[in-house]
Amino acid sequence: MKIKELALLIEGTIEGDDNVDITDLSGIESARQGDLTFAMDEDKLGQAEGSQTVCVLTTRNSRKSTKTLIRVTNPKLAFLIAYNAFHESVSGESFIHPTAAIADSVILGKSVHIDAHVSIEANVVIGDHTTVESGAVIRKNCQLGVHCHIHPNVVLHENTILKNKVVLHSGVIVGSDGFGYIRDREEIYKFPQLGTVVIEDAVEIGANTTIDRGSLGCTMIGAGTKIDNLCHIAHNVKIGKNVIMAAQCGIAGSTVIGDNVTMSGQVAVIDNVTIGQNVRIGGQSGIIGDIKDNAAIWGSPAREVKQTKKQMAVLAWLSKNFNALSQIIKEKDQG
Amino acid sequence: MKIKELALLIEGTIEGDDNVDITDLSGIESARQGDLTFAMDEDKLGQAEGSQTVCVLTTRNSRKSTKTLIRVTNPKLAFLIAYNAFHESVSGESFIHPTAAIADSVILGKSVHIDAHVSIEANVVIGDHTTVESGAVIRKNCQLGVHCHIHPNVVLHENTILKNKVVLHSGVIVGSDGFGYIRDREEIYKFPQLGTVVIEDAVEIGANTTIDRGSLGCTMIGAGTKIDNLCHIAHNVKIGKNVIMAAQCGIAGSTVIGDNVTMSGQVAVIDNVTIGQNVRIGGQSGIIGDIKDNAAIWGSPAREVKQTKKQMAVLAWLSKNFNALSQIIKEKDQG
Amino acid sequence: MKIKELALLIEGTIEGDDNVDITDLSGIESARQGDLTFAMDEDKLGQAEGSQTVCVLTTRNSRKSTKTLIRVTNPKLAFLIAYNAFHESVSGESFIHPTAAIADSVILGKSVHIDAHVSIEANVVIGDHTTVESGAVIRKNCQLGVHCHIHPNVVLHENTILKNKVVLHSGVIVGSDGFGYIRDREEIYKFPQLGTVVIEDAVEIGANTTIDRGSLGCTMIGAGTKIDNLCHIAHNVKIGKNVIMAAQCGIAGSTVIGDNVTMSGQVAVIDNVTIGQNVRIGGQSGIIGDIKDNAAIWGSPAREVKQTKKQMAVLAWLSKNFNALSQIIKEKDQG
Repeated sequence: MKIKELALLIEGTIEGDDNVDITDLSGIESARQGDLTFAMDEDKLGQAEGSQTVCVLTTRNSRKSTKTLIRVTNPKLAFLIAYNAFHESVSGESFIHPTAAIADSVILGKSVHIDAHVSIEANVVIGDHTTVESGAVIRKNCQLGVHCHIHPNVVLHENTILKNKVVLHSGVIVGSDGFGYIRDREEIYKFPQLGTVVIEDAVEIGANTTIDRGSLGCTMIGAGTKIDNLCHIAHNVKIGKNVIMAAQCGIAGSTVIGDNVTMSGQVAVIDNVTIGQNVRIGGQSGIIGDIKDNAAIWGSPAREVKQTKKQMAVLAWLSKNFNALSQIIKEKDQG
Repeated sequence: MKIKELALLIEGTIEGDDNVDITDLSGIESARQGDLTFAMDEDKLGQAEGSQTVCVLTTRNSRKSTKTLIRVTNPKLAFLIAYNAFHESVSGESFIHPTAAIADSVILGKSVHIDAHVSIEANVVIGDHTTVESGAVIRKNCQLGVHCHIHPNVVLHENTILKNKVVLHSGVIVGSDGFGYIRDREEIYKFPQLGTVVIEDAVEIGANTTIDRGSLGCTMIGAGTKIDNLCHIAHNVKIGKNVIMAAQCGIAGSTVIGDNVTMSGQVAVIDNVTIGQNVRIGGQSGIIGDIKDNAAIWGSPAREVKQTKKQMAVLAWLSKNFNALSQIIKEKDQG
Repeated sequence: MKIKELALLIEGTIEGDDNVDITDLSGIESARQGDLTFAMDEDKLGQAEGSQTVCVLTTRNSRKSTKTLIRVTNPKLAFLIAYNAFHESVSGESFIHPTAAIADSVILGKSVHIDAHVSIEANVVIGDHTTVESGAVIRKNCQLGVHCHIHPNVVLHENTILKNKVVLHSGVIVGSDGFGYIRDREEIYKFPQLGTVVIEDAVEIGANTTIDRGSLGCTMIGAGTKIDNLCHIAHNVKIGKNVIMAAQCGIAGSTVIGDNVTMSGQVAVIDNVTIGQNVRIGGQSGIIGDIKDNAAIWGSPAREVKQTKKQMAVLAWLSKNFNALSQIIKEKDQG
């Protein structure tokens, strides 16, 4: 890619030789000949100058350099926009590994890449530029959009729908049976799990996360949402757009999570509650009721962050002043 | 299936045309021509009348309908009993995908279904009507009963025993090494993990759950028990019958869990304790000692629900009345 | 193996027939003809005498027996040293299952074992005596040392480095993308994940655990460290040597964990903190700041164990004495 194209894309100003081609983007430590890297400060700029990089993204006001610079407002953000653009433009040819098992009725788009030991069952439709890596299993009637990336050993159960640019990391399970049982006298009956899962555009889901299918309706993950590793999304959960959910969170059945919610790790949310938009949730919180829009909550059970912090401080203070406190109560008891 | 057979099975009364065949069961939203659905109230009954369903399970006392009704005491329970019966009666022929790698010494029952890229190692025995889906790995000497369902990418390690009607969802690992180490001076030694896992009838285990094998004895999951996704069952754990364990619970080594226990999500239980029968455990509880039969516990560390709730209320009240409290203590300190 | 060799290895004294060959080691319950077992006390010794075992490891001062004894100071530790030595000495011949998909440029050492449906991509190097079991996926440019054991359905992403004697249990994912996003106005941008993972000698990682690769640098797991099932290790985390981490722990990005740390289950550690050497961490702890060497901590948020326990006791006491306390405050309020 020409350096001029890149500068245009990230609204940057070139300083130095602008007749340079970029072969790849990398961190300073691993920069090779032809790479572009970024430097947030002058220390890092010094390091970059000592590396084989040909071009450095840096701030608007840092010092001049022996390397070609592209000056931008936020070098880190510019780097990632550049990186994503750079890697998106590389589009492979169609490839199907000879060990893949693909049913006759499967419909494959253009430039689809299917790797070793993949299984794709009847009536699956896969959009253009989608990659399915080794060992992934795509069961009957699934529909995958364009530019999806299915990493190794992912499983998509029957009727799963992935829109476009969905990334599922290794070991993700989508569409497994929900956990729906009814105890009646001495028996446990399983409620049929007949629904499906719909995952909208640009969703990314972390390694070994599991997403159950709806029991009768569907489980939904809204556009732009990012879910980290080892999360559990139960049947009929509806997650809004642009939600960020850190690792090992668990969302129980039929719960609704609004747009732009941010959730730290190991949060648990019970079934059938609604979390509003823009809510921020602290790590290891346990949510047992509805939460209003824009709230910041923490604790198990979760309350407003302020309230949780005050209770923690009060308990610490009481613990420190325990002798006086117990003396007062003893005196009271004695009358 | 004839509607009369179905009505008999669920102890229902037919109202309307009883000369109808059912082709499948489904939720109201997705009902197709020939399907049976259920309606818990008259609103839902109205919806069902507008759908293509031929027959509706409903309550004993709801209004009459243009559709054929089967009246029962609990339509939801009746629906799932009907659903399970309906789907059980469909028994496939034997099938082995040409890409499956099956050792010569493996013994397969009748109507066994083995899908793409499955590996089955020496001396495995698989019972009648059992299905093993794509990418599953069954290592040496495993024994699987009849009507088991092994979903994609499950791994069964050596010597695992599954009784009948066991369902393992995608990505489940059974029989991995237990986490047994001894620190001695500067070294960590691994204790050999030589035991196995026994999973009894009608157990169902959720996606990406892991069950370690016993170190010397065995890890046991009792008949009828249901375990949700991403749970961890350590070596030598004994889980009783008809236990319901929600997602992301972790049970440490050699712990015993009694029959009919119900556990919410993200519960942790330490090693070598005993949880009695019929115990109910709230979400995110941390259990660090034995628990008596029939207890209801919650919290980390877990206590009786009543006690945990009272402590939470007291702390909230103290936090609210902190000014008065701190004033009293200051006065006391001053004499 | 000759009993004399074994006794030498574990610094034991033989009592009885020393002209015996050991065919395997096992627990008392499952001992077969030719096996060696161990007995920590005389009860167990009695059980061992009733079994088919030919030789029993026992304490220095227990009674005489009809079986050949090897007397040692710690029979359990001796048993596991013997077990490991015994099983290490069994070294298979090279084996490649015909269904494995191995790129031409892959370099395999001596006595490498590769099982069914394994995928190994370009430029991978695998050391002597390493085993890769069914369904494992090893992506481009990975390097595996000698005597590694990769269990079924493990995934190693590009450029992962495993040193020697690394054991990865079934379903482990190494080198998945880290969870790095930047919210900017209405958009979420993904930060490129270009780094790698380095796992040092004798590390063992439990089933379905996920280890993300560094965003620009690398994620490191130090020699001798043991990680249990379903843990999450985020990008750029550095874990020291001989750490023991129980199941379902989550370590957020760029956090550093010192040597010899011991962590119970379901612990969460936030990003960018440092945990010192020899720290012991109680179950379900939530760590939100740096921790000094040799500390013992517990709670969410975590404090010194003593402090956490005192706070719990104080709250329990206040809850019990709530009536008196509320009376005092009421009187104060009333003037």
